[in-house]
Amino acid sequence: MRFLAACRRQPVDATPVWFMRQAGRSLPEYRALRGSGSILQATSDPETAAEITLQPVRRYGVDAAILFSDIVVPLVAIGLDIDIVPGRGPVLAEPFRSRADLARLRRLEAGDDLAHVIETVRILKEELSIPLIGFAGAPFTLASYLVEGGPSRTFGRTKVLMHSEPLVWAELLERLGDISLAALRAQVEAGAAAVQLFDSWAGALSRAEYERFVLPASRRVLEGLADLDVPRIHFGVGTGELLDLMAGAGSDVVGVDWRVALDEAARRVGGAKALQGNLDPAICLGPLPVVEEAARRVLKEASGLSGHVFNLGHGVLPETDPGILAAVVDLVHEETGR
Amino acid sequence: MRFLAACRRQPVDATPVWFMRQAGRSLPEYRALRGSGSILQATSDPETAAEITLQPVRRYGVDAAILFSDIVVPLVAIGLDIDIVPGRGPVLAEPFRSRADLARLRRLEAGDDLAHVIETVRILKEELSIPLIGFAGAPFTLASYLVEGGPSRTFGRTKVLMHSEPLVWAELLERLGDISLAALRAQVEAGAAAVQLFDSWAGALSRAEYERFVLPASRRVLEGLADLDVPRIHFGVGTGELLDLMAGAGSDVVGVDWRVALDEAARRVGGAKALQGNLDPAICLGPLPVVEEAARRVLKEASGLSGHVFNLGHGVLPETDPGILAAVVDLVHEETGR
Repeated sequence: MRFLAACRRQPVDATPVWFMRQAGRSLPEYRALRGSGSILQATSDPETAAEITLQPVRRYGVDAAILFSDIVVPLVAIGLDIDIVPGRGPVLAEPFRSRADLARLRRLEAGDDLAHVIETVRILKEELSIPLIGFAGAPFTLASYLVEGGPSRTFGRTKVLMHSEPLVWAELLERLGDISLAALRAQVEAGAAAVQLFDSWAGALSRAEYERFVLPASRRVLEGLADLDVPRIHFGVGTGELLDLMAGAGSDVVGVDWRVALDEAARRVGGAKALQGNLDPAICLGPLPVVEEAARRVLKEASGLSGHVFNLGHGVLPETDPGILAAVVDLVHEETGR
Repeated sequence: MRFLAACRRQPVDATPVWFMRQAGRSLPEYRALRGSGSILQATSDPETAAEITLQPVRRYGVDAAILFSDIVVPLVAIGLDIDIVPGRGPVLAEPFRSRADLARLRRLEAGDDLAHVIETVRILKEELSIPLIGFAGAPFTLASYLVEGGPSRTFGRTKVLMHSEPLVWAELLERLGDISLAALRAQVEAGAAAVQLFDSWAGALSRAEYERFVLPASRRVLEGLADLDVPRIHFGVGTGELLDLMAGAGSDVVGVDWRVALDEAARRVGGAKALQGNLDPAICLGPLPVVEEAARRVLKEASGLSGHVFNLGHGVLPETDPGILAAVVDLVHEETGR
């Protein structure tokens, strides 16, 4: 299991590869299966979600599968009225505005609330011969959707809330952290062999904001998984300024986007973590020689690391040619195989 | 003129303040004046553009005015079919796709093509008792609009073009650089006392991409202004990883967003430049005590600098209360006055 070995900084026969959003819109077999149904519909049917999870495994020869789901699934499961709007993202009908909204976040009883997710993981454990990665949203990124009511470029309402109502903010993040932790534990107990905590939008914050308003809640989630003994990956986009702080939150692997070379990221993170990344997904829209050159550069920058999981620096873009990603998997395995 | 002195790292009686996008949508008097007309209409009428430029000067007591215009104005002036779509941004009817499109970028004859801009600057030179900042888009950011056809989150087509057609890319940036340089020289010759080169989206690039595909063209623009002896400011969002490279492009002042504290930015930029920034515009949506605390933090982080121009880390958000920005100007002047 070269993916798990790399996460644990153990010797591998070749650098493992998987791609964030490897399952989904870039695959014609996914578009055919989902048809006109919503993402949340697809995640709620275990047979469908398992099949979508398996599609990229068959096509690409990746070294890990990632559960087909969405970071808002646990929030939908406790009754929040969230829709994933095509071309926009998760939209909450009534955004969080004050302390009173905290009551809308009840505890996640994963066995009941996420029964469909647990069933999906069980199916996949039977079907897969490679590790399955479970995942959840980190408290800050989840909170940003609840407070903004949808995707944001500026995170204005979110930042204003953290600064002006720090106690409400702290309780919001604590509750969201409990939900994410319960969701992750349930996935591992059902068979996931690793987990990724997505703090996708943490890069919008200053270091001071991250340290004071975000890190404690993320740490609680990651440390709450310690007894399960599965690799924990922690990732956000544009987090070069935060890598040392994010590394301190307690993951085994730190995900890095394309803005920071992996050798530099290793200096920031310190020696005790594996790194995951960091081919620019936008480059993967280009012709094969351009993509190969960029992938080789990533491997070169990672050559001194102990523990590298090859991935993109963010999710696969919908318009990506799947043949390009298949070629990247082959290249990484060939160039690093021994 | 404390703004010009700070740009030149000379002694000041108080730290100067201005705000990117201080003129525009956050001001009711702007919305009243523009009515239902387009931004490009407003920029094309010298009396209107001058009045919009003056509105924030009257209201805020800032130490510099910035010409009301848009980075696409010189491109519209040479005949490109660009519309600024409300809520979206500049949209080009026919995006650039290949070498043949280079012919669409003719030379800018600023005296004729930008006669309306020059007239606006002349009016302002009569009206203003503080320095006027002229500006232009940096070649990369302009190119991204032409290649993507509008605003982008991923800059996929732009990155693919630079990597797969480096000669076409280089000529595209050279032509855009010539246009920006001509536009900036015309503004200075008409009376602008400083200029800002906006490479707003350069933060989407890796260091290697910036150094190879962007820096040479930006340097040509900035160095092409050297004989005019006006301070040159160079700014982009999310450019923490690039600050040393951007500083090497030849500006006098480097703009910094809120992700990097100014003392850390000074270490990256090196000692020979003034810094501009870096209050988070999203924080300015909050209540006054929160904004004041954040502004004081910026001043504290800037306290060891020689040469600080207080500004936001990006443009004023449209929903900002102008009273908040007025209070920030007062706070900066009071806290730093001597």
